Amino acid sequence: MHKQANKDEENCRIEAGSLSRYREKLPRIAEKIIGSCSDKECYTHIDYEPIPSKESVIEIIDRFREVLFPGYFSRTRIDPSNLTYSMGQAVSLLFDLLSDQICRSIRHDCFRYDLPCTDCADQGNQIALGVLESIPEIRKVLATDIRATYDGDPASKSHDEIIFSYPGIFAVMVYRVAHTLFGFNVPLLPRIMTEYAHGLTGIDIHPGARIGERFVIDHGTGVVIGETAQIGENVRIYQGVTLGALSIPKDAGNQLRGKKRHPTIEDEVIIYSGATILGGDTVIGARSVIGGNVWITRSVPPDTRVMTEEPRLVYK
Amino acid sequence: MHKQANKDEENCRIEAGSLSRYREKLPRIAEKIIGSCSDKECYTHIDYEPIPSKESVIEIIDRFREVLFPGYFSRTRIDPSNLTYSMGQAVSLLFDLLSDQICRSIRHDCFRYDLPCTDCADQGNQIALGVLESIPEIRKVLATDIRATYDGDPASKSHDEIIFSYPGIFAVMVYRVAHTLFGFNVPLLPRIMTEYAHGLTGIDIHPGARIGERFVIDHGTGVVIGETAQIGENVRIYQGVTLGALSIPKDAGNQLRGKKRHPTIEDEVIIYSGATILGGDTVIGARSVIGGNVWITRSVPPDTRVMTEEPRLVYK
Amino acid sequence: MHKQANKDEENCRIEAGSLSRYREKLPRIAEKIIGSCSDKECYTHIDYEPIPSKESVIEIIDRFREVLFPGYFSRTRIDPSNLTYSMGQAVSLLFDLLSDQICRSIRHDCFRYDLPCTDCADQGNQIALGVLESIPEIRKVLATDIRATYDGDPASKSHDEIIFSYPGIFAVMVYRVAHTLFGFNVPLLPRIMTEYAHGLTGIDIHPGARIGERFVIDHGTGVVIGETAQIGENVRIYQGVTLGALSIPKDAGNQLRGKKRHPTIEDEVIIYSGATILGGDTVIGARSVIGGNVWITRSVPPDTRVMTEEPRLVYK
Repeated sequence: MHKQANKDEENCRIEAGSLSRYREKLPRIAEKIIGSCSDKECYTHIDYEPIPSKESVIEIIDRFREVLFPGYFSRTRIDPSNLTYSMGQAVSLLFDLLSDQICRSIRHDCFRYDLPCTDCADQGNQIALGVLESIPEIRKVLATDIRATYDGDPASKSHDEIIFSYPGIFAVMVYRVAHTLFGFNVPLLPRIMTEYAHGLTGIDIHPGARIGERFVIDHGTGVVIGETAQIGENVRIYQGVTLGALSIPKDAGNQLRGKKRHPTIEDEVIIYSGATILGGDTVIGARSVIGGNVWITRSVPPDTRVMTEEPRLVYK
Repeated sequence: MHKQANKDEENCRIEAGSLSRYREKLPRIAEKIIGSCSDKECYTHIDYEPIPSKESVIEIIDRFREVLFPGYFSRTRIDPSNLTYSMGQAVSLLFDLLSDQICRSIRHDCFRYDLPCTDCADQGNQIALGVLESIPEIRKVLATDIRATYDGDPASKSHDEIIFSYPGIFAVMVYRVAHTLFGFNVPLLPRIMTEYAHGLTGIDIHPGARIGERFVIDHGTGVVIGETAQIGENVRIYQGVTLGALSIPKDAGNQLRGKKRHPTIEDEVIIYSGATILGGDTVIGARSVIGGNVWITRSVPPDTRVMTEEPRLVYK
Repeated sequence: MHKQANKDEENCRIEAGSLSRYREKLPRIAEKIIGSCSDKECYTHIDYEPIPSKESVIEIIDRFREVLFPGYFSRTRIDPSNLTYSMGQAVSLLFDLLSDQICRSIRHDCFRYDLPCTDCADQGNQIALGVLESIPEIRKVLATDIRATYDGDPASKSHDEIIFSYPGIFAVMVYRVAHTLFGFNVPLLPRIMTEYAHGLTGIDIHPGARIGERFVIDHGTGVVIGETAQIGENVRIYQGVTLGALSIPKDAGNQLRGKKRHPTIEDEVIIYSGATILGGDTVIGARSVIGGNVWITRSVPPDTRVMTEEPRLVYK
């Protein structure tokens, strides 16, 4: 006799009975969890204000991509005959989504920390408009990033391939938009955006970092660029590069919040994979080359090459 | 004349004819693939039992997040007036999803390896209930993780920002749930859960690892924590840190399965980015600091600082 | 009085008025963005030809997974009684999706660079058929990858667990399919496929790389395998390993495109986490073991063990 049928015979009735025995314990479990919501040690968000929505953030990023690279990522074909309509529609939709999420992010902090009225709705509209107005400028900077990527990467077959598929361009695009929002002091939203890109690409750029034109991240997985890092023009970094903070005491959070903690990278620097550069006073001088896997905590003068020791060979 | 129209004229009829010429070869290809299903060298899963579903695992994780951080990730607003209903509904739904997937995972192995009856349906209910009962405890531990993150990270603006956007908290949350399932000896499901988090965050924590309170993973991409690693309280690790197994012979699979192969990290240790610590007998003593990119295969006493050599500077 | 109600009273009318004040600026913004579309410095894709669709690429990968591992990832149960129908249907669907995307990718380049007629539709059908015909062969090679993974990884509980959850197997599967497409000189599509896998797994394998049987990537986050890398049989690599190009001049793109720039890894080599091996003339000899975090830019003879120096210990 087939094993499953056999099992079914034995178990069917027992299962139905036992299921109700288990399910009747659920209300008590729910109550316990609800009880733990008033425990001040735990985190809950049982409030009247709306919260930022990750789904909307994802849609905002998708829409920005459509507007920043017209025609590349559109759901419907864009050609000269419908460009005006589709762009007008995209901008209008983006405005609504963006102003709503900005408003929610501001209102969230307003209610959460009981701030004086922040005019959140009006600010949402105003800032959304400001960000949309900067789109042509962001497009220009992204175009320099794409050209620099193509110029430096023999594996890239075309500019289109870079736009369609390179994670570095996606992460830098999200960063450049989030940085604009960060400049308007919008809470929560910029970081949710860059962390979404981090999840998709493994590239973690804090929206507060300042990054010049012609910026290239190749491969990119594991890259970390800290909040107060400053990067000049024409800089190229590879996977696993960290621009981070120096040895952090356990209570660093409040001591160092807002201070410059991450390095400055001057123009034309190349940083190879796995290199780590730490500290707010650390400056990598222009045109220097930082070798792979090196660990740097002090400044490097311009036109310098920094390398690890040769590895040891042992013959088995 | 427009190039496309031109092409269409030439090709339309030819295309229709050639398409059928190609498509009529498909049945033979399908047969060949089906034939390869009886090839014992290849992997197929042509069976009567249901298999775990990744879609359901994703929904389970989403629901856990709603219940572990009430109000932060809800699809509908949660406020004091609907908390009881929404939590009751969430717990009920989670129970159904979880017991079903646990049952499928157990039944899968039961049929696959022809085990004696494992009472999979009853076990599914029982274990699901056990996991739900541990939610208040998991919430408490996660709260310590969040506070430790905030205390140590000057870039974090608020506890809410950490919950909304930090990948480290997401990965640790999934690990803490999966570890509970792992403790009940559920096959397949715990690893599918942590690998889903791995995909989203780049943080790979095996559900078997044992990790204390106030655990912080900052940035996190590339972190690997092996199955038998033990981590004390108040430990902080950065991106690219590996707690792995020592030099593994090619046939290590069966020799070492189940043995302690990964290091022990005592309380208050900090491990900077890219550091690798290997071996089941390796113990990093309490309060030690492991510098970035170092490679350690033997124990380090408490209160020790371990660093790489200074890199070589070459002036171009 | 409740704060929110208070705010609503004050702000409701003002908001409605101010919203229209903001929204009426949108057409001008849209026009500016449209204007920037004719700026030759920026990238737009306002054309008549269809473009490759990432959504379709994702569905193609999902379908390949269903066909390459029958029964493991099916939306509906597959058992001996419906195997023929479900496989026939899957192959037919895959053919349609694949031939369409191949055609779009070829046509994209054809129109974009004004090439002579490339017979894109016919080529789409022909190449799709060729790829489908190679499925039994790809299945066999993937089976060797799975067995090698199980043999070498004590944390893996079963072959099924590896297929269900290991990111290394997913990335290698996508690579093996994309490499087949790359062999047919399909533009865009292969790289979009491997970059999708890169996003999900952190493993970045260029579709042009040549990789032998029994290939294992463990954990995998941060792995980079360059376009012209050659990997023998029975090679195992860990997270963060780079097989990359040597120091690249800023204008390397055009100089080096198409040349061998990435290393050759002979049979039976193991490369531990974070190791970086660079250069087109670099050969890692058979059976060598490359230690973690080492940085290699010249060849290593067979049967050699390469290691970093011991780290420095400092007692606090």
